[in-house]
Amino acid sequence: MRTVVVGIGLIGGSIALDLRRTGIATHIIGVDKNDAHATRAKELGIVDEVMSLEEAMYNAHLVVTAVPVNAIKGVVKLVLDLALNHTVVIDTGSTKASICKAIENHPRRSSFVAAHPIAGTENSGPDAAFAGLFADKTNIICEPERSSANALEIADRVFEALKMKTIHMEPLEHDKHVAYVSHLSHVSSFLLGQTVLDIEADEKNIFNLAGSGFASTVRLAKSSPEMWAPIFEQNAEYLSQALLEYIMHLQKFQYYLMKRDVDELHRIMTDANRIRKVLEGIEHKQAPKKLSTEK
Amino acid sequence: MRTVVVGIGLIGGSIALDLRRTGIATHIIGVDKNDAHATRAKELGIVDEVMSLEEAMYNAHLVVTAVPVNAIKGVVKLVLDLALNHTVVIDTGSTKASICKAIENHPRRSSFVAAHPIAGTENSGPDAAFAGLFADKTNIICEPERSSANALEIADRVFEALKMKTIHMEPLEHDKHVAYVSHLSHVSSFLLGQTVLDIEADEKNIFNLAGSGFASTVRLAKSSPEMWAPIFEQNAEYLSQALLEYIMHLQKFQYYLMKRDVDELHRIMTDANRIRKVLEGIEHKQAPKKLSTEK
Repeated sequence: MRTVVVGIGLIGGSIALDLRRTGIATHIIGVDKNDAHATRAKELGIVDEVMSLEEAMYNAHLVVTAVPVNAIKGVVKLVLDLALNHTVVIDTGSTKASICKAIENHPRRSSFVAAHPIAGTENSGPDAAFAGLFADKTNIICEPERSSANALEIADRVFEALKMKTIHMEPLEHDKHVAYVSHLSHVSSFLLGQTVLDIEADEKNIFNLAGSGFASTVRLAKSSPEMWAPIFEQNAEYLSQALLEYIMHLQKFQYYLMKRDVDELHRIMTDANRIRKVLEGIEHKQAPKKLSTEK
Repeated sequence: MRTVVVGIGLIGGSIALDLRRTGIATHIIGVDKNDAHATRAKELGIVDEVMSLEEAMYNAHLVVTAVPVNAIKGVVKLVLDLALNHTVVIDTGSTKASICKAIENHPRRSSFVAAHPIAGTENSGPDAAFAGLFADKTNIICEPERSSANALEIADRVFEALKMKTIHMEPLEHDKHVAYVSHLSHVSSFLLGQTVLDIEADEKNIFNLAGSGFASTVRLAKSSPEMWAPIFEQNAEYLSQALLEYIMHLQKFQYYLMKRDVDELHRIMTDANRIRKVLEGIEHKQAPKKLSTEK
């Protein structure tokens, strides 16, 4: 399939690599408003050609959009406006309610599949892209009933090529769950990093005193503000709710700490230990990917 | 040296293994009020014999205490009461102000070294112990001026055997820094796990939606409440201060989020990105250990 990837960073680039590897994409055209990214993606062999969106859409069979979430509405609308009868458009953004709402009445709505393949690293740009990024992870498709059978079938082929398991979710439900399970951990990590940097004016102290536990907890604070600021804005309501609950838990803990109520602290931590089971599941799920990326 | 290890869990057990491997301990006696741990440590060959503290102290040359921090005062006082002229006692607990204060006037204060070898995993008990746990990590010694030259020399040999780099710090300064760099990340992780478990009644959602980022951020929520509740209690003042600052940062972020002030969110995250440099240092520091534990 003649494939257009709009936004060739970590996500778009990694999808392009898997689509080429599996033969689903026979010719890949990259579109990126960042010229340096576009040029670099071509150099790296991620795309065959670089074009403007208007040129690229001519004769495109499959279009994958992987742009920052604040640009999705504009990009997807334009792509659907330019789409031909046989064009299938798949969006991969991290929030889904806003885009689904924005194009609900578009005449080409049925050519569109609202997806969120959940994967990432703390790096970004075409240099961060790699084949296998999505393997064994979960893909969410929202409102499949609004996509045509043909569009869903092509989406199935794409996400199978990425080796993902697809589940369905309503857009609002999707945004709420990712606020808690993904966006909140990014915020908590950014601000933990911030708090420690604030107090430890001398970074040498952090080097000396930090163990692997600290490194693990603040790893996400390395993430790209360019990518995350728009995601947080798009999902502000649910993320804010998640943050307030998190803050409430922290305040309760601080209260029992000041009361020296060790039994209650113990009880809270024992309850949180239930995460062990969940993490074992995640580690199990991710084992194949880990092996493939650790050289 | 005839060595007594009081408390043979992850820390005490791992120290015993390195002291034996390097020949510093010629005979290791384990003392643990948990009979199952004591028996297991003997089965695993971590200690040669298991005894009561009173018996073990007879003719002991080196005593390493690695008990929960709420038991340190009682244990170290008793050990110093039973110590002979040539006995050197090294404590390894995670908070230092309280124990240093408690024994400041003990007639055997100069036989004592207040240390904190900073290492650990989220596992506990003698089965979690392994040689090399401390390699390339930092050890803190507090109030070295109150330890005799002989005691410091033996402590040097011990921490060299553990392959640690030793730095000096005042007890209160130590407790404050570890509150920010270690204890706070444990609390943030426990409560992040708690918040997500609270909202995601169906754990299947967490499995499906969580990526490696979530797993990394909540990894410490698997830690032992038995170990951490007393540490938090001992360091309640500084930890509470760290928590309040963390909560303040979260509240500010939530405020800008609700104002949809993307520029300010971006600025906060860019500032937190400075942690990247610190993490690279930590990863570099820990590289040798990582290699040795990844089979």
